[in-house]
Amino acid sequence: MEYLLELNINRVFDFLGTVAFALSGIRLASAKQFDWFGAYVIGFVTAIGGGTVRDLLLDVTPFWMIDPAYLVLTGIALLASLLFKHQLFSFGKTLFLFDTIGLGLFTMVGLEKSLEAGLPFWTCIIMGAITGALGGVIRDTLINEIPLLFRKDIYALASFAGGAVYFVCIELGVADTWAFPVAAVSVIAIRTLAVKFHIHLPNIQNLDSKAE
Amino acid sequence: MEYLLELNINRVFDFLGTVAFALSGIRLASAKQFDWFGAYVIGFVTAIGGGTVRDLLLDVTPFWMIDPAYLVLTGIALLASLLFKHQLFSFGKTLFLFDTIGLGLFTMVGLEKSLEAGLPFWTCIIMGAITGALGGVIRDTLINEIPLLFRKDIYALASFAGGAVYFVCIELGVADTWAFPVAAVSVIAIRTLAVKFHIHLPNIQNLDSKAE
Amino acid sequence: MEYLLELNINRVFDFLGTVAFALSGIRLASAKQFDWFGAYVIGFVTAIGGGTVRDLLLDVTPFWMIDPAYLVLTGIALLASLLFKHQLFSFGKTLFLFDTIGLGLFTMVGLEKSLEAGLPFWTCIIMGAITGALGGVIRDTLINEIPLLFRKDIYALASFAGGAVYFVCIELGVADTWAFPVAAVSVIAIRTLAVKFHIHLPNIQNLDSKAE
Repeated sequence: MEYLLELNINRVFDFLGTVAFALSGIRLASAKQFDWFGAYVIGFVTAIGGGTVRDLLLDVTPFWMIDPAYLVLTGIALLASLLFKHQLFSFGKTLFLFDTIGLGLFTMVGLEKSLEAGLPFWTCIIMGAITGALGGVIRDTLINEIPLLFRKDIYALASFAGGAVYFVCIELGVADTWAFPVAAVSVIAIRTLAVKFHIHLPNIQNLDSKAE
Repeated sequence: MEYLLELNINRVFDFLGTVAFALSGIRLASAKQFDWFGAYVIGFVTAIGGGTVRDLLLDVTPFWMIDPAYLVLTGIALLASLLFKHQLFSFGKTLFLFDTIGLGLFTMVGLEKSLEAGLPFWTCIIMGAITGALGGVIRDTLINEIPLLFRKDIYALASFAGGAVYFVCIELGVADTWAFPVAAVSVIAIRTLAVKFHIHLPNIQNLDSKAE
Repeated sequence: MEYLLELNINRVFDFLGTVAFALSGIRLASAKQFDWFGAYVIGFVTAIGGGTVRDLLLDVTPFWMIDPAYLVLTGIALLASLLFKHQLFSFGKTLFLFDTIGLGLFTMVGLEKSLEAGLPFWTCIIMGAITGALGGVIRDTLINEIPLLFRKDIYALASFAGGAVYFVCIELGVADTWAFPVAAVSVIAIRTLAVKFHIHLPNIQNLDSKAE
């Protein structure tokens, strides 16, 4: 019973994260005059890209190939974009919240799947960040932009930090059922605080006076 | 005997499609001042990219790794581009025909391989479209253009429609040996008619007044 | 004893190659105003991208997921870039040497792994070139540039030539322990001579008067 409840909550956040990721893809596609189909594909790839690469690296069947929910959720995101565009994107903060919750939850899903595959802890942390952040990188590459990830905000780094929090919790003897939510909340808190207080990493200085 | 004949016809179309896809890659590479090697690589990736991603997702050995035909066919396409460039590209309609036949056949190959892997029908349809259309997306990403697919023509959508036609045929009790050619011809017909009558999907309106 | 020595020498060159590849990624990232994290990721992807795609194609666990050395080496490359940037990049020739040695060794690692997987010789040659050259292609795609590989220098082609040298050696009855170093040195020699004497492949002429 409790397990079912937990499962449902995870599933709800997974779905909210998927919709938020899809919306972020659809929004960027719309700025490039894509047609509806192109916008749908970019939304879908943003939502499932990170998890797909993770599953390829883990050598398991990518999750969306055996669960139609992600196709349907991307369709809902596209429909919402077409019908309620003014209302939808005036709720910028709501989208940011979903996107950040999605990042936190996707990170934990990736970490958990990698743990189950018996990988070392540092690979699990990387796999969490790949799950959470790589969809956006693929999105930006496809729309021919330099990935935001490399230049702006604490994003993948929040994911890494959350992964580290999980393993610190486990080292300290915290049970799995607590370590996961604590780590997910860490991801969300770090990203939110970094954006609120404009915390950035320094840029790397140009090492290349004569561009190749 | 009949099986051999069918196999040979499929093989002929597969090869024509491969050459057409390779030529489309070589042509776009030529507009970017690539050297011969770069043009060959772009041609090869255009021809085998979709099927390679499909095979990675299906967890089977990519087809070109165990059959040298695709390397040879790309070589033939490059040689033809270097020797007969004026003649070759004045036959724009012939190339369009090969490319469209390739799309139809590649779609069916992807769908069939996914069926054999026991995947649900909607995944099979997606895998058909990935096989037919993703090579061109990888090509466009490598030459640093926004994939045409997202903005122009009915292309991947013809592939999806063909996949749906296949499953409708099967539902209606049509035998496999008929459903495959009917679906492949549907892909070819939809793409041809869409181009002839300038049928496009609508573009998605810009949802993002202030570009991020 | 002899085996251990050989292993260590390979390992040293593997590490030098990794650092050189990571530095090339970090240097290009620095010209795009990436932050430290973005520079690290680009460096890491440059170093491990080719081998990762190879391992996905071979259906084995990507090497860096079970050996933390590559993460550490990329960290060393980033630290060196931040601390000694003036000194480091005035040693352009040293970097070129490492990069070229890395190409030679990575080619041989890819070829060897593919041989062990029982693939035909021409696939092994391609896998060698993928291991050596694809990291740079992924790097250039992520920083939104057309891959240098397609336009400049003899790079992947040196890798192909080295792979061919290996199989010619084997055909001539040369032992494995000699064929590998001979082939690796061929890669290094071909690339070095091509750069020294400005040997290029011809560009392909524009086949497309009216750009699509």
